[in-house]
Amino acid sequence: MTRSTRQDTGQEQFLTVLSRDEALARFEAALFPRTIPTEELTLADALGLALADDVMAPIDVPPFDRSNVDGFAVRAADMATASEALPARLLLNHETIACGVAPQIPVLAGTATSISTGGPVPRGADAIVMVEHTQPTEGDAIEVRRGASPGQFISNAGSDIARGEVLLRAGTVIGSREIGMLAACGIALVTVARKLRVAVLSTGDELVQPGDALRPAGIYDANGAIVSAAITENGGEASFLGAYPDDEAKLEAAMREALAAHEVLILSGGTSKGAGDVSHRIVNRLGAPGIVAHGVALKPGKPLCLAVCDGKPVVVLPGFPTSAMFTLHDMIVPLLRRMAGLPPRTEAKVTAKVPLRIPSELGRTEFVMVSLVEGDEGLVAYPTGKGSGAITSFAQADGFISIEALADNMPAGSEASVTLFTPHVRVPDLVVIGSNCTGLDLVVGILFRAGLTVRSIAVGSLGGLAAAKRSECDIAPIHLFDAKTQSYNAPFLSDGLELVEGWRRMQGIVYRPSDIRFQGADADEAVRAALADPNCMMVNRNQGSGTRILIDQLLGPARPDGYWNQPRSHNAVAAAVAQNRADWGVTIAPVAQSAGLSFIALKEEHYDFALVSARKERPAVQAFLTALTSPEFNEGIEPMGFIRPG
Amino acid sequence: MTRSTRQDTGQEQFLTVLSRDEALARFEAALFPRTIPTEELTLADALGLALADDVMAPIDVPPFDRSNVDGFAVRAADMATASEALPARLLLNHETIACGVAPQIPVLAGTATSISTGGPVPRGADAIVMVEHTQPTEGDAIEVRRGASPGQFISNAGSDIARGEVLLRAGTVIGSREIGMLAACGIALVTVARKLRVAVLSTGDELVQPGDALRPAGIYDANGAIVSAAITENGGEASFLGAYPDDEAKLEAAMREALAAHEVLILSGGTSKGAGDVSHRIVNRLGAPGIVAHGVALKPGKPLCLAVCDGKPVVVLPGFPTSAMFTLHDMIVPLLRRMAGLPPRTEAKVTAKVPLRIPSELGRTEFVMVSLVEGDEGLVAYPTGKGSGAITSFAQADGFISIEALADNMPAGSEASVTLFTPHVRVPDLVVIGSNCTGLDLVVGILFRAGLTVRSIAVGSLGGLAAAKRSECDIAPIHLFDAKTQSYNAPFLSDGLELVEGWRRMQGIVYRPSDIRFQGADADEAVRAALADPNCMMVNRNQGSGTRILIDQLLGPARPDGYWNQPRSHNAVAAAVAQNRADWGVTIAPVAQSAGLSFIALKEEHYDFALVSARKERPAVQAFLTALTSPEFNEGIEPMGFIRPG
Repeated sequence: MTRSTRQDTGQEQFLTVLSRDEALARFEAALFPRTIPTEELTLADALGLALADDVMAPIDVPPFDRSNVDGFAVRAADMATASEALPARLLLNHETIACGVAPQIPVLAGTATSISTGGPVPRGADAIVMVEHTQPTEGDAIEVRRGASPGQFISNAGSDIARGEVLLRAGTVIGSREIGMLAACGIALVTVARKLRVAVLSTGDELVQPGDALRPAGIYDANGAIVSAAITENGGEASFLGAYPDDEAKLEAAMREALAAHEVLILSGGTSKGAGDVSHRIVNRLGAPGIVAHGVALKPGKPLCLAVCDGKPVVVLPGFPTSAMFTLHDMIVPLLRRMAGLPPRTEAKVTAKVPLRIPSELGRTEFVMVSLVEGDEGLVAYPTGKGSGAITSFAQADGFISIEALADNMPAGSEASVTLFTPHVRVPDLVVIGSNCTGLDLVVGILFRAGLTVRSIAVGSLGGLAAAKRSECDIAPIHLFDAKTQSYNAPFLSDGLELVEGWRRMQGIVYRPSDIRFQGADADEAVRAALADPNCMMVNRNQGSGTRILIDQLLGPARPDGYWNQPRSHNAVAAAVAQNRADWGVTIAPVAQSAGLSFIALKEEHYDFALVSARKERPAVQAFLTALTSPEFNEGIEPMGFIRPG
Repeated sequence: MTRSTRQDTGQEQFLTVLSRDEALARFEAALFPRTIPTEELTLADALGLALADDVMAPIDVPPFDRSNVDGFAVRAADMATASEALPARLLLNHETIACGVAPQIPVLAGTATSISTGGPVPRGADAIVMVEHTQPTEGDAIEVRRGASPGQFISNAGSDIARGEVLLRAGTVIGSREIGMLAACGIALVTVARKLRVAVLSTGDELVQPGDALRPAGIYDANGAIVSAAITENGGEASFLGAYPDDEAKLEAAMREALAAHEVLILSGGTSKGAGDVSHRIVNRLGAPGIVAHGVALKPGKPLCLAVCDGKPVVVLPGFPTSAMFTLHDMIVPLLRRMAGLPPRTEAKVTAKVPLRIPSELGRTEFVMVSLVEGDEGLVAYPTGKGSGAITSFAQADGFISIEALADNMPAGSEASVTLFTPHVRVPDLVVIGSNCTGLDLVVGILFRAGLTVRSIAVGSLGGLAAAKRSECDIAPIHLFDAKTQSYNAPFLSDGLELVEGWRRMQGIVYRPSDIRFQGADADEAVRAALADPNCMMVNRNQGSGTRILIDQLLGPARPDGYWNQPRSHNAVAAAVAQNRADWGVTIAPVAQSAGLSFIALKEEHYDFALVSARKERPAVQAFLTALTSPEFNEGIEPMGFIRPG
């Protein structure tokens, strides 16, 4: 597909953006009513599926009057005057009622029959006395020294489950407890709603399947796997059919085949307009009524396309992972569950405070993924903030908040309702917000193996400092350079925060090993060589980072080509150089090494921790501080390419 | 096994009852430390399993600087002065960067390259302008009428996931979101903790497998199915091996075979001491150290037996369903999860008020299954009250409360912490507490199909009235006869309650059709015949029931044999007569019919509803009242054997 084609059709794509509710209403109208396919399964196979019909109890449970103890079946009236002084003497009947043994001899007045727990109470008996409360005596008899009330230690027939009552209702999901009730009634087979057969197909020239080698400009297909897994988690039977390039004929053949063999077709990974066009044209040829909604006033999720083709739903998900996941869970899964006779998924919600103003697009309901941490005054909801293009936005969030279409932001300090992705909020033992470092993984790993949970939110050094000042984290990892004092981190701490020394990271100039301009140069020589060649391009770092200050010192007044390419991480610098987007930049040694770049050491960067003093005595914070001095840390940090202070 | 054997060994069985914590500590000491068996699986197959090792990100995600929109890759500096009046004009490079296309041409000053969402940003570009903000112009160029900030609409390499960071920790359960993160990094295979292979074997002469015909004195094996399903729900691989009678040689062979092929052996259904003895003797021969705890100060659950045989756990669960389930979930599942590398199951708790005094056994921690309903002042926890022998005690409960060993009761009005069996409390739309009737199922079914949830708790008429007075239910079904006024139900209502007419149930004398003493008799004749034969045995009803009053009227001063056999339900009366425990009794027509008994009609019993007036306007209560006059009800109630009033 060429650029011009895309631009031509691009204008028509979102002409009829619908509200979420209108889009859903159209989709539902085209899908329902419909019958729910069923099948008969054994109890074990039915686990997790929904009952298709009400189930009536075919028998009483217990099926007979049952003894609840080991003892003797008696007539209570025989013990009316029994006491320690004047025990009742009962002749033993020549029968022992074990479990599974039907009694033959009636218990007449003055007699007793030995009975086990679970045994059927014989005719004539109206109570059980426990074996512990009897004494064997001569003449094949027992003595009882206390009274017995009629009915004692007997469970009557039907007292657990009564024959004819509705045991379980249609739509009930069968768990182990339901299996117990069905088995207790002797039911071995149940009719359940059959699992929905869902085909998942990824589209996009750029997609590479996990396990295959990544080619230049290729990305791994995450959506295919995540959509398939989400279908499985929601009781469907997902078939992932692989990724197809944007070849219209081949894709159409694959989609037709998928739809013939399945009840639902979901296309994942057709990013935005370009790839979408092809699939949308095909969808409209697959059957009536075709596309019922394309473009929904949701953020993320606008490009969602909903179709019904000859009774089968066909969905083209947005290509960005978070958009795809969010629309799948919000709009598609509920309908698939309904098609499969499953009850709605229960959603848990909690209230949390939003620490920062969250901007929002007017006119679209906006959903913002958040991580939850415990602040001084309850839960705080942190936007995960990586955008809908990031897989981690969705995968590492605890839930989401929604900002209504009529608002253009959610003000800082708002109380928001957070819909959780999992039923429980597990408030972590330790919250770390700030700059990330692979060295931090070493410390977190030590805590993790000690059974502590750690939430680490990467928002950069300044974001971490702000969170620490608001007491929303225990520890903020920072590496901030103060030009005035020519020192790291300490000058940035305010009251209530204290500095804990972490480790150091050697910063240096990186270049491709094949680049003869830099081979053998020291730092000054390298910078001179770079500035001398107008074709030599640099990659910078973001304003405010310590590395940026270092770069500006190296450059002096020069502003070479690439100066405005200012990524926010060491990894992005290494990738830019490795992939020829730039020829040199400044990053840290471990990152240079894993990217396969040559490295000219410059200066140590101090990666330290701003600790919230008020939280210092918490056990998890103490454990963190202990981990920083542990042998495991001391032995592990240097092999990772970091430098211990001191 | 004979009675005397049981008595002999019975005394030794519980000599060393341990506290729950001590029993667990011994079990753990014999089981841990141990290695967790692992296997390598594809992502899809790993769904729901726990990661065996930490997983590091092998690549940056995105792997390159990526465009987030459809547009043009540019140099921001070229648009520094762009405005509506003075647009920047950029020459188009002869390249289109679609997804999956590696750029070849650098973006030099004054040029732009067409790029799709997801395309790699070419060398030289430091920003993307959206296609919507450009205008094609002559000479293969575009015009841009607004400024661009460096980095705009670019996601840098590694901004989502940074190469080398710990992506997921060992022990993380793989859900769809984790699968997305692994797939995005190109990981196709993961090493996970293998599912634990658990053999489940039921023991007991009385057990019949679901689907087989129930023989006299037999009961269906529910524990085998429920234990197997609970293992599956907790990530294990359960093999149910069937039920074995108490034949020591055969059972031992089966247990040895099971243990050879599995990692865990659980015996379910060995009721109390009798059946237990056999299995316990065998367990002690299976390997060292053998039984580590037998008898735990828990109620229910005292007979639990924990053993480790040559490194493999062997558990003999108590035979009563609720005891078995409770000990399985409380003491066994956590250890099995730990053996399988799975994290602890998260438990949700809520606080609820206990409406009644709950007696408890001193010296044992007692767990009481409860159902939750919404009262006027929050949640109310109703003991399910059928005892540990009942499968429904566990299956229909929302959760449980615990009463400490040092207390002999929990006072009415206590605030109790309820551990939920499922993550959410779903407060039902309508709460019905009182006497149960299969006719009520018809009404509940109508509400259910209208999407309303109904909780029905059977506590008898008087229990229902008490709950209604405490506003703990919406409706209490009752059938109480007032001897003084010779009328049903109305005389029992107090302020705040109003009567809603339900239906009537014909009560009558039942007898086995083969019993010539009653054939062709009317009610008076039948009672005369019964009283005339000293071998003729009756079954009565509990004091306080309307049927009991009717029986006493029939009998006058006579107290025939069986008078003290006083079950609490119509079903139990029918079962007693059908199973020859008694020769006659009084029950209602539909129950007589389904038990296959002959029936001599006596008098209609009124099954009505005490409605809590303050709750009358609730939508679910209105729906209930509407259902009582609906065609579906009117057409369904009489075929069920009930009589419409009026």
